[in-house]
Amino acid sequence: MPEVIPHWLTKQADIAPDQIAIEHINGKTITFSKLKTNSQQFAKKLANYGVGKGTHVGVLSTNNASMVIAIHALSYIGAVSVLLNTRLTKEELTYQINDAEMMVVLTCDSLEKEVMVMDLPVPVKTFSEISHLPEMETDLQTEIILDDVFTIIYTSGTTGFPKGVIHTYGNHWWSAMGSALNIGLDSNDKWLAALPIFHVSGLSIFIKSVIYGMPVYLMEKFDQQVVQDAIMERGVTMVSVVTVMLKRLVDLLGNNTYPDTFRCMLLGGGPAPRPLLEKAKAKHIPVFQSYGMTETSSQIVTLSPLNALNKIGSAGKPLFPAQLKIDHTKEDSVGEIFVKGPMVTRGYFNKKEATNSAFQNGWLATGDLGYLDHEGFLYVVDRRKDLIISGGENIYPSEVESVLSGIEQVSEVGVVGKADETWGQVPVAFVVAIDQTISESDVIKYSNNYLAKYKVPKQVFFVDKLPRNASNKLVRGELAKWIQNN
Amino acid sequence: MPEVIPHWLTKQADIAPDQIAIEHINGKTITFSKLKTNSQQFAKKLANYGVGKGTHVGVLSTNNASMVIAIHALSYIGAVSVLLNTRLTKEELTYQINDAEMMVVLTCDSLEKEVMVMDLPVPVKTFSEISHLPEMETDLQTEIILDDVFTIIYTSGTTGFPKGVIHTYGNHWWSAMGSALNIGLDSNDKWLAALPIFHVSGLSIFIKSVIYGMPVYLMEKFDQQVVQDAIMERGVTMVSVVTVMLKRLVDLLGNNTYPDTFRCMLLGGGPAPRPLLEKAKAKHIPVFQSYGMTETSSQIVTLSPLNALNKIGSAGKPLFPAQLKIDHTKEDSVGEIFVKGPMVTRGYFNKKEATNSAFQNGWLATGDLGYLDHEGFLYVVDRRKDLIISGGENIYPSEVESVLSGIEQVSEVGVVGKADETWGQVPVAFVVAIDQTISESDVIKYSNNYLAKYKVPKQVFFVDKLPRNASNKLVRGELAKWIQNN
Repeated sequence: MPEVIPHWLTKQADIAPDQIAIEHINGKTITFSKLKTNSQQFAKKLANYGVGKGTHVGVLSTNNASMVIAIHALSYIGAVSVLLNTRLTKEELTYQINDAEMMVVLTCDSLEKEVMVMDLPVPVKTFSEISHLPEMETDLQTEIILDDVFTIIYTSGTTGFPKGVIHTYGNHWWSAMGSALNIGLDSNDKWLAALPIFHVSGLSIFIKSVIYGMPVYLMEKFDQQVVQDAIMERGVTMVSVVTVMLKRLVDLLGNNTYPDTFRCMLLGGGPAPRPLLEKAKAKHIPVFQSYGMTETSSQIVTLSPLNALNKIGSAGKPLFPAQLKIDHTKEDSVGEIFVKGPMVTRGYFNKKEATNSAFQNGWLATGDLGYLDHEGFLYVVDRRKDLIISGGENIYPSEVESVLSGIEQVSEVGVVGKADETWGQVPVAFVVAIDQTISESDVIKYSNNYLAKYKVPKQVFFVDKLPRNASNKLVRGELAKWIQNN
Repeated sequence: MPEVIPHWLTKQADIAPDQIAIEHINGKTITFSKLKTNSQQFAKKLANYGVGKGTHVGVLSTNNASMVIAIHALSYIGAVSVLLNTRLTKEELTYQINDAEMMVVLTCDSLEKEVMVMDLPVPVKTFSEISHLPEMETDLQTEIILDDVFTIIYTSGTTGFPKGVIHTYGNHWWSAMGSALNIGLDSNDKWLAALPIFHVSGLSIFIKSVIYGMPVYLMEKFDQQVVQDAIMERGVTMVSVVTVMLKRLVDLLGNNTYPDTFRCMLLGGGPAPRPLLEKAKAKHIPVFQSYGMTETSSQIVTLSPLNALNKIGSAGKPLFPAQLKIDHTKEDSVGEIFVKGPMVTRGYFNKKEATNSAFQNGWLATGDLGYLDHEGFLYVVDRRKDLIISGGENIYPSEVESVLSGIEQVSEVGVVGKADETWGQVPVAFVVAIDQTISESDVIKYSNNYLAKYKVPKQVFFVDKLPRNASNKLVRGELAKWIQNN
């Protein structure tokens, strides 16, 4: 029997109507009562487009309150929000729009111009365009069935084809509960959101907000000075960051320290260099390393405060409702990381085969490698096969290679990550050209048309041949070594 | 797809092995690691009796750590704990043992003598008897399927026949989550348990303990001085009480106040007189009034700290995952209270008809009467039809009447609650006798053989006839008026 709860925003607006739900850096605030009213009105306006229960609707927006309202509005209708990365190209967006069977894409006003010229295959409507529509009579959801689908977020994969990860309301609920059981629930909490809401790490902050009755300090984009000020002067107690953000914050902090009320710097999105963690520790920053992915609805393994200091470098233990195992040949050795729990996706939209191959007896095979120490703490040694993580964004080499092989003069291509002080890693390409009529800038220019900027190779090396194994498969590990010589 | 989580005690022992799980008033403590080990050993010993997955096992015990270990042990086996009220007579116990299809009853050493002479219909084993058994090889549960049955607790009802309320693991989980979302989760929390563990209000503290990683301060029985000392000097931050306990605590406190770290006096088990609440408020005691019943796995409506002061007398709002409605004819009027949520029982064991009649479209009809004020706060005006609540224990007049009518010289009988300064209410009986050969003490003596002491009428009035309505049904409301004249 699927569990049923009251609609979480309606409920929070009933319990704590005057509590602040969203605080903007310009000082503007929205209460839970207002957030509910605005979301319900927006839902009734959306009904003009025929958006109804089960409709898939794209949401392509920078971080702002209208985006949050749109997502809640879609949940009031019972429609599914498909969150789109704002850095994707026309080609990438078109693929996801078709693959996810979207009916319409909603976008923020600031992106209007650049999106409209893309000529996407479905209608695109801006938030303010919708706000001017009349409210239609429509039945809004009063309850949430936890098994129902709430969001779809695309992630690439080893195959190079992005896949839509399905998140039910239950996945998000359990993720929020797992986090609360790990770091506690304090009535003074305020969580800063600078991560993109189109990523599950950013989105999850707004779900926690509604379930906990907690204000979110909303930033359109990350700025270390603004974040530091928010911690120092605006009562922010928790911040979600990726490595590059933590580095900037640590550098900016200098000899200062955050107030004692600041209790969690949740670090996700890829491995963090040990020296940075040591530096943060020296400055008494309560960094919570974590491990997760779109498929796990954000963090699933987190280092708790009890162990933050003596287990530096570890991602911690699985959250209370979650389980973890390493598929290894012997004790304490490295193997593939498997996870299980009610925050783990049920699979990929319309991708039965990919879903089946991702799960084994209810356990998700993450493709990442790691080991457990003798006390059961997870150390991630390598992310998904060849995955490049650049500033918290995932880049799958196969996806970039697939695009670059579309260039007429390119015979073969191999993409790999190169260490980068700012971004952690950046992608670089090794190309075997058919003739010498193609240059590095040609490759980059071409890539810009088809790939989000962060996926575009920062360097292109022309080589005579690529390293391949006996079965003629590209050996990317060898390419990684070549980089060190370039 | 039923949700699966790791076994909660195993998980907590992994996350916080050295954290204290149970603190006894004599200073003895048990860590989560030890609690797990002891429970698993106890499970393997229990296997000697053939207790296995799905077996129903009675637990008849005063509050002590062995009882908690036994309940966890049964969950490791996958067996169901049927919690028995220690004040029941042989007849009452026998009824529940047969009705719940128990295989064996476990009891604490201090009850051994009085239980053994009862000659109950199934074997009775004491905790220490079991502890001397060898450990059998047996598969222990590593996961919890939330839809599985964890406990059964009997409650009487308007029909007079006690019914076994089924609690799944999920019911208990959601109850714990609902409470955490209401009062927060603080790593310094310590919850005092003086309520009987055989009641869901007492049991729920130990489930929260395992899920939150929170110590419980365990008391065998309530003593206001010990409770006050625990709050003042032992770091207790939360206490669950019923009205009579709160009254004693308030009286004892005098002009003192509790430390600021004390953050919740959770008040359940029936209506509280307004003067007592005012007194508690004047002494800055953070009383959280609540409303719940066995069927809702403890509190389901609770007054949050935000409103504790300005909504005195209200039971508050339904917990985050719960819903409430009043079945009334017009706005703001009194009607039957209906509740819904994932902490609500799925029904009564082997009582299909009673289950069906208790639910309407997924909503539990509580039988209690109440109204909502204009802000949606619940005020309970009358508990289940004719229910007598005495010191937090529920007494159904029909059950007492049914026993008393077994006396040969009794022709008719009506039972009703009489106001009592100490217990809130006590039961009294109106009897129409066949002849004058029977006295008040005869009736009480007979009752003592068949009824738990708290259910035995404290006074017996002999009358010529009972007030009945046109369809010859007893009008208990009229009896209540008669009391005022006696």
